[in-house]
Amino acid sequence: HCASSASGTGAMEAGIINFLSAGDRVLVGCNGKFGDRWAQLSAAFGLEVEKISAEWGQPLDPEQFREKLVGDTEKQIKAVIVTHSETSTGVLNDLETINRYVKDHGEALIIVDAVTSLGAVNLPIDSWGIDVVASGSQKGYMIPPGLGFVCVSPKAWEAYKTAKLPRFYFDLAAYRKTAAKNTNPFTPPVNLVIALQTALRMMKAEGLDSIFARHQRLMNATREAIKALSLPLFAPDQAASPAITAVAPVSVESEQIRSVMKKHFDIILAGGQDHLKGKIFRIGHLGFVSDRDILAAIGALEASLRELGYESMTPGAGIAAAARVFAQS
Amino acid sequence: HCASSASGTGAMEAGIINFLSAGDRVLVGCNGKFGDRWAQLSAAFGLEVEKISAEWGQPLDPEQFREKLVGDTEKQIKAVIVTHSETSTGVLNDLETINRYVKDHGEALIIVDAVTSLGAVNLPIDSWGIDVVASGSQKGYMIPPGLGFVCVSPKAWEAYKTAKLPRFYFDLAAYRKTAAKNTNPFTPPVNLVIALQTALRMMKAEGLDSIFARHQRLMNATREAIKALSLPLFAPDQAASPAITAVAPVSVESEQIRSVMKKHFDIILAGGQDHLKGKIFRIGHLGFVSDRDILAAIGALEASLRELGYESMTPGAGIAAAARVFAQS
Repeated sequence: HCASSASGTGAMEAGIINFLSAGDRVLVGCNGKFGDRWAQLSAAFGLEVEKISAEWGQPLDPEQFREKLVGDTEKQIKAVIVTHSETSTGVLNDLETINRYVKDHGEALIIVDAVTSLGAVNLPIDSWGIDVVASGSQKGYMIPPGLGFVCVSPKAWEAYKTAKLPRFYFDLAAYRKTAAKNTNPFTPPVNLVIALQTALRMMKAEGLDSIFARHQRLMNATREAIKALSLPLFAPDQAASPAITAVAPVSVESEQIRSVMKKHFDIILAGGQDHLKGKIFRIGHLGFVSDRDILAAIGALEASLRELGYESMTPGAGIAAAARVFAQS
Repeated sequence: HCASSASGTGAMEAGIINFLSAGDRVLVGCNGKFGDRWAQLSAAFGLEVEKISAEWGQPLDPEQFREKLVGDTEKQIKAVIVTHSETSTGVLNDLETINRYVKDHGEALIIVDAVTSLGAVNLPIDSWGIDVVASGSQKGYMIPPGLGFVCVSPKAWEAYKTAKLPRFYFDLAAYRKTAAKNTNPFTPPVNLVIALQTALRMMKAEGLDSIFARHQRLMNATREAIKALSLPLFAPDQAASPAITAVAPVSVESEQIRSVMKKHFDIILAGGQDHLKGKIFRIGHLGFVSDRDILAAIGALEASLRELGYESMTPGAGIAAAARVFAQS
């Protein structure tokens, strides 16, 4: 494990450039802002990028990865880059299945953006044999942004030896070497390291299974509430991220909802990115979030919808649906 | 100005890779750990590095830069990389003179590591025409580490257009573009951004001239105290950094002094790096440091020396010397 002063994007850059060389062929799963970002990043470093795309809001199709990987009899695919939880759309990709196909291929590394999945959903890195996992401090780890993590498998360290992309600040071997001496190659964000210690103690006390169950419960309560308010969910139930829920309202403006929520209730909902700007709003339920927070958000959402003249709901239906989920889990 | 989630090393990497291409010839001033680091970094990115070296503890000789630059009639030198305040040795390099020779050359960019000089000593970036200045949050800006800054001249932005080194997380054009919209390309360390706002207000209230005078006073008091205790200063007076003072004790062990200072007085003195390990200790007086802090450090140093059986001093001489400086300035 290597930790650096960087955002999640910095951690992913480290996770990619340490194990590849210019011209290497990589498959990149693209079904949202972050998948697209890793394709751009890979191209910026001269990798030969092949996108496996799905519509934003839909999950990646593992079958498309399988076909490419099975067809690659000359083992030219050096890495498969997948965003586990696509924060821009609230979609959880089927990493387990995609990873199985990568393992069948045998040569390619699997590099995972786990920024909003690690600490929210089960990601058994070692037993699945994930080669590179990148994440950041401000999501499942509940502390401010600025600390990026990268977890590296023995197979990826082997690839490191021949990988030629230039690197210095993000040269993970330097972090590995100094970590063994309990120090860092470059000044770390010390306040975040200390905060992380507290966060990890909290996570240990709660227990991973309970943490995952809590995120599942928060997601279910949010989704049931949104359905009860007759608002369309952007991602399908079977590919819903336990980190964030995207909503695509039709008879009321997304940006107006965000504005009222912020002004009257001091609650910030994320908007859509790129072509989804103005079309969706997103409710985060990742990390330091409790049942109470969801009830506050849904309650404020109901009040905001009412203020905006939204008529397709029974007042209180959202809270009732969320409370039902909490009572059952 | 671009700000990123990174340490000072990350900021320097950004300051170098955005404006150069593999194979470009660069002169790198090397008279300490950080100068050496920029030479390593430049080599890691495939630049053709020519070191201008001086012994650690001595300043770079501007004349050596002049000779190389004057001799470069074909204008092959693309950049001159200089560490303004060499933190590892407490030496302040003569940036003004070196920069004048770079300006006479006309083509080369000057790229400056100002991590421990910005906010401590006058660095008139625009009037001197410095092309790239990199710094970090945890030094002159008085806040925790994790926010790196890069300041870029119009000439450097011109060079950006043809610079081919691969970059994504540190692609400064992305920061420039989003800064114009008051946002960031990637998640910034928000807590540090808010802290910086407070720090900048404090700096505005104190005034740059007063800040520089304070650092000068802290440096003078520290150096006079060290001399009064008959301990050898590592850097000469005429090249002393207002950020940090390195001391090279002879009849008493540097590491023992550091250990007693930490154990009995809860004061952390930095040690030597690389081949200076165990040979020097360093007293930082950069950023949020007052006259009182220097008196506390010198007082504790005297007490530690006494405990270690050091006999070449008159007890109280260090404090007396520091107090004399404070009374005069």
